[in-house]
Amino acid sequence: MERVLARLCDIVGARATGAAGVRADHGRSEAYHAARPPDLVVFPETTQEVAAIVALCRDLRLPLVPFGAGTSLEGNTAAPHGGVCLDMGRMDRVLAVNAEDMDVRVQPGITRKQLNAQLRDTGLFFPIDPGADASIGGMTSTRASGTMAVRYGTMKDNVLALEVVLADGRVIRTARRARKSAAGYDLTRLFVGAEGTLGVITEVTLKLHPQPDAISSAVCAFPDLKAAVDTAIAIIQSGVPVARIELLDAVMIQGINLHARLDLPEMPHLFFEFHGSRAYAAEQAETAQALAGEFGGLGFQWATTTEERSRLWHARDNTLYAGLALRPGARALITDVCVPISRLAECLVATAADIAETGLIAPVVGHVGDGNFHLLVLLDPESPEEMARARAFNDRLVLRALALDGTCTGEHGIGLGKMDFLALELGEAVDVMRAVKGALDPLGLMNPGKIFRPTPSSDGEQP
Amino acid sequence: MERVLARLCDIVGARATGAAGVRADHGRSEAYHAARPPDLVVFPETTQEVAAIVALCRDLRLPLVPFGAGTSLEGNTAAPHGGVCLDMGRMDRVLAVNAEDMDVRVQPGITRKQLNAQLRDTGLFFPIDPGADASIGGMTSTRASGTMAVRYGTMKDNVLALEVVLADGRVIRTARRARKSAAGYDLTRLFVGAEGTLGVITEVTLKLHPQPDAISSAVCAFPDLKAAVDTAIAIIQSGVPVARIELLDAVMIQGINLHARLDLPEMPHLFFEFHGSRAYAAEQAETAQALAGEFGGLGFQWATTTEERSRLWHARDNTLYAGLALRPGARALITDVCVPISRLAECLVATAADIAETGLIAPVVGHVGDGNFHLLVLLDPESPEEMARARAFNDRLVLRALALDGTCTGEHGIGLGKMDFLALELGEAVDVMRAVKGALDPLGLMNPGKIFRPTPSSDGEQP
Repeated sequence: MERVLARLCDIVGARATGAAGVRADHGRSEAYHAARPPDLVVFPETTQEVAAIVALCRDLRLPLVPFGAGTSLEGNTAAPHGGVCLDMGRMDRVLAVNAEDMDVRVQPGITRKQLNAQLRDTGLFFPIDPGADASIGGMTSTRASGTMAVRYGTMKDNVLALEVVLADGRVIRTARRARKSAAGYDLTRLFVGAEGTLGVITEVTLKLHPQPDAISSAVCAFPDLKAAVDTAIAIIQSGVPVARIELLDAVMIQGINLHARLDLPEMPHLFFEFHGSRAYAAEQAETAQALAGEFGGLGFQWATTTEERSRLWHARDNTLYAGLALRPGARALITDVCVPISRLAECLVATAADIAETGLIAPVVGHVGDGNFHLLVLLDPESPEEMARARAFNDRLVLRALALDGTCTGEHGIGLGKMDFLALELGEAVDVMRAVKGALDPLGLMNPGKIFRPTPSSDGEQP
Repeated sequence: MERVLARLCDIVGARATGAAGVRADHGRSEAYHAARPPDLVVFPETTQEVAAIVALCRDLRLPLVPFGAGTSLEGNTAAPHGGVCLDMGRMDRVLAVNAEDMDVRVQPGITRKQLNAQLRDTGLFFPIDPGADASIGGMTSTRASGTMAVRYGTMKDNVLALEVVLADGRVIRTARRARKSAAGYDLTRLFVGAEGTLGVITEVTLKLHPQPDAISSAVCAFPDLKAAVDTAIAIIQSGVPVARIELLDAVMIQGINLHARLDLPEMPHLFFEFHGSRAYAAEQAETAQALAGEFGGLGFQWATTTEERSRLWHARDNTLYAGLALRPGARALITDVCVPISRLAECLVATAADIAETGLIAPVVGHVGDGNFHLLVLLDPESPEEMARARAFNDRLVLRALALDGTCTGEHGIGLGKMDFLALELGEAVDVMRAVKGALDPLGLMNPGKIFRPTPSSDGEQP
């Protein structure tokens, strides 16, 4: 590795290292998976440097793992086969804001909060909010979504074009800047959600949205999960373009009461946000409030000031820490599934019964408008037995979601954690993914060991 | 071909033919390209039949061209290499409506109007409207969009999952029915817009949308194209979710006055439609009207009754025929490009000057909210010289759009007509498309000669 490091330093100067601390920082994440550090970490500053690094890794047959903010939840940036970690954090510039076209071109290392800070005076914003302050490149690669997806879509819907360094070191652009195109295969969407297994993203062109004139937020308690889900279904069917509609179960409410010093009744809640003109945001809120009443909602609590609203959504955004507050010293197995919304209540109720049987604490938070929910299974970090129980529970959860025509992951990606579930979910379609992988990365060097287990290929060696 | 026909009849009984009339019907389209009939036409009724036909064609090394309603505009369903045309028209059933989930699973041969007729009582509708009564499978394969895309997105945004018969006869599903997923590569989007070159779509699961409580429509004349475009930009930046905003130039207004017996001033116009609650549709219309006034709009003309509204949008939907009315006996070279909206006025003005120099008549209609516009270049069908002039004009149009960071086609697809432009637009990215094509269709039998020109491949023969 000494010699590899010297070659990397030829490309990036002092911005490459094999230091144990830096390697360790890039091997762990917020995921429950064991840390898998890379052999070397390099901090490129330009597309040309990335291309040179990729070409070098290809020549040396070294695995290459792109790394953003390290906030992914399925070990997506771990380095199970070692190799070189490309930390994209220094490529964090806004390259062009096109206000009339409502788009922006950025480098992948910029985080969503950094981006929105730089957009503040344009009247535009980038809405996708997965909670963590993830990097745009990482969000693109994981096909991230989060609380605002019900209104603004996921990364799939908000990436206009990408610049990508291919496995052979060539640099391509996947699309022009037109708002739509019917010109050939949708390469943009091929790289969105590919978790760095097909190439390294070096630029992202994103759609932006007008900052709403008015934002209003509310919380509403419900007697049970089904009442909350039925309310969400009715609101969406009514055509109200709710900006956020988040479900928190009674256990999670306990957690955020503890962590964010709120004082909500310990029952399932929906958190709402409405965007629009002043009149339209009010109209949406009225419709939602009336529908919540019909389904047994126990009254809207409005967050009328900006401060109250921030406190509420800050509490929601920090449910990871709020959940952990329920069992001091615990770590969490974090997982997510997504089902058709008509099956969501059924899935949640069965899951609650299952978790009760495990004897573990596992608060739930969900993007209910999409049928997507997360569980944080709280574990004693010293107890392999608890981890085994949690993993068995996770297996049952995913099988339950698949049985309801759902997916093994709504937004965290496959990473290391869900490779076997992917095959259960999509069957022979996974062979098509493998064929695409083999065509674009015949040596299997791009983030190997993610999405699907490597299989021997006639086209090249696998690490 | 006699023997091939016999083998096809083993699969589908009498639903296969080599009759000259049927072949001719499947070789022509609304495109300006020369008719290229297939050798045989087969009318499958089930996925199993499609899979058997695909496997047969593979064994016999015969090209295979899927065919929907024949309304595509770039020769996308022509058979330049002969072979078997799969007419999907008999696979036209609605398989499942999931009203709570706002989705529907259909066979690909159903047309959008047939689908909406069957959805009428559900409170839901499928909004994508390319004008023609295209089939859902064809719209999926062409990544169609049309007048409502500015509000509801394109096919890319509205297809949840596909069933596809691969080139080797295997049947896959690209996704489950969850509203979103981060599970592996986005195979759904890979097949959306692939023009049948990667497989045959046999089922489509579509997102549906709530029928709006209120719809209002208006037209507004503008002194010039730039004023109309600036109005559209301002409306979209204001956050008004306009359902349709269509630009028609003065020449196209002449045509629809003739064809639809309207009496609009012969100036550039915007046609508007607003969807929402009664109050919100009215609010949107007020905002749009005020902005149009700021940019020199000459007053909104409201279509208040359902009848007036239908007449207006019927006129818009029939711009092909309206355009042809301007030169009786003509046929049209129809083309489309799409540019960032900030460059649209510039592109339109330069294009108008260019068309004036050619001495041809070419009305313009555009989905101005997306920066996408169409030209119908009206031609004497007996004059190769006019066709040559029109083709040269089309070349310049596309190069102009590309120079403005636009795309060679916003919604018609590449088909036969824009293969060379695709390479100019995306450069080496086209090699990635070819690699994907080679991986999924190594024999090059799926709709060959579309999207990119076949190149000899080491993996297999090319027809």
